[in-house]
Amino acid sequence: MEKLLVIKIGGNVIDNPEALDRFLSSFASLPQHKILIHGGGKIATQVAEKLGIETLMVDGRRITDEAMLNVVTMVYGGLVNKTIVGKLQQKDSNAIGLTGADAAVIKARKRPVKEIDYGFVGDVAAVNSDQLSAFLHGGLVPIIAPLTFDPASGSMLNTNADTMASSVAVALAAQFEVNLVYCFEKKGVLSDPTNDDAVIPQIAPSAYQAYKAEGVINKGMIPKLDNAFAALQNGVAKVTICHADQLATAVNDGSAGTQLINE
Amino acid sequence: MEKLLVIKIGGNVIDNPEALDRFLSSFASLPQHKILIHGGGKIATQVAEKLGIETLMVDGRRITDEAMLNVVTMVYGGLVNKTIVGKLQQKDSNAIGLTGADAAVIKARKRPVKEIDYGFVGDVAAVNSDQLSAFLHGGLVPIIAPLTFDPASGSMLNTNADTMASSVAVALAAQFEVNLVYCFEKKGVLSDPTNDDAVIPQIAPSAYQAYKAEGVINKGMIPKLDNAFAALQNGVAKVTICHADQLATAVNDGSAGTQLINE
Repeated sequence: MEKLLVIKIGGNVIDNPEALDRFLSSFASLPQHKILIHGGGKIATQVAEKLGIETLMVDGRRITDEAMLNVVTMVYGGLVNKTIVGKLQQKDSNAIGLTGADAAVIKARKRPVKEIDYGFVGDVAAVNSDQLSAFLHGGLVPIIAPLTFDPASGSMLNTNADTMASSVAVALAAQFEVNLVYCFEKKGVLSDPTNDDAVIPQIAPSAYQAYKAEGVINKGMIPKLDNAFAALQNGVAKVTICHADQLATAVNDGSAGTQLINE
Repeated sequence: MEKLLVIKIGGNVIDNPEALDRFLSSFASLPQHKILIHGGGKIATQVAEKLGIETLMVDGRRITDEAMLNVVTMVYGGLVNKTIVGKLQQKDSNAIGLTGADAAVIKARKRPVKEIDYGFVGDVAAVNSDQLSAFLHGGLVPIIAPLTFDPASGSMLNTNADTMASSVAVALAAQFEVNLVYCFEKKGVLSDPTNDDAVIPQIAPSAYQAYKAEGVINKGMIPKLDNAFAALQNGVAKVTICHADQLATAVNDGSAGTQLINE
């Protein structure tokens, strides 16, 4: 089975041009088939503010009315995505920027209104793995913005990049041996949040439950790890969580970051 | 030889949601291989104004400093491009949005500074016709924003959509029988600018020279027609200039718009 890296890069790295450039150099150097899913960063909030559009967040998720949808479509689908694509092309990586609407690679459903109306926010409904596979076999490197679309209305939908990454990884696991890699600004999952070097090298599901029960792993890491373990249980071969600067080391020999493994 | 439509849609139609929707329905209905190149419209100027960035135009061309480059990358590459792609997907057309940087489909050179420094403005250097052809044969409909890129720096470059359309048409003329179609808000090239129905049905190069000498054709139409005749002299089978609402009629039976033909 051919190998595939599905790599997610978070917003904090995107907000820092030097860190982003280091990450993209490392990403470009990896010889495997690969897909990058990027977050949005703080630029959308800054642009919205300048345009006089108020940002409302609930549990870290952006409420996306029509004006905010236009902002994230501009910033994520335009500025952030094309900046990354241009930089990768300059580094001889044949990047192609995509939202879920492009070639219909990721269809979604607008999130139903329950206690909170998130607005134009999408939950992934279907990943077109044949199309992504065709791009990969055509020598292309898909760079996916955190935007999906509703095929019924044609509307773009703001979508969480972490869940997009795990959905893409799971969908491609039938055709590739997939390593899903979450890159962010920490060295991995920490056993002590005050010590940046206290990286847990490996976590199996039973240990994860124990860490959660003890409160060692909490808050923002829980949805990320829930996503990651779900991917592992659905055919993804390996999940890695690492610092953006340690991508190559984490992928090539596993000596950096946290590896999530099946029991 | 397979047929290919290379269609350019101008900014005035993009600024009008109803007109854009009518045009896209018509575009989606055409069964041929097709590529759409879209202009930017006035949204970039409006967004720039709200962001406190001044718009400077020289001879109808936008001076593009770094702040303005970010605006056009957001608006053309994000908002306008993805809005079109989403609408076409909703109309069952398998659209894929591209800038020149995506899959390196259109490389450019930053325009040299002479009397005027246009800033981050690109002149097309190379069209990757094999990649565009692969997309077409893969059942995709490329939707190209008026942005190219400089492979040496990785920088996006603001680029005139008319010249991008003729460059794409010429590059693909070796592999396809290309009909290049310029859609705008007039019914064609007019023999009397005060009479919207005075459409000249056909123009050959000698007649074009005569019309220019008499002043029948002038101003903004001249660069457009110079581009169009250059395409015709470089392998493009047919050039059509028509109203956005008459796309299907102009393409299917030639009874609308102006056809440019070789002598």
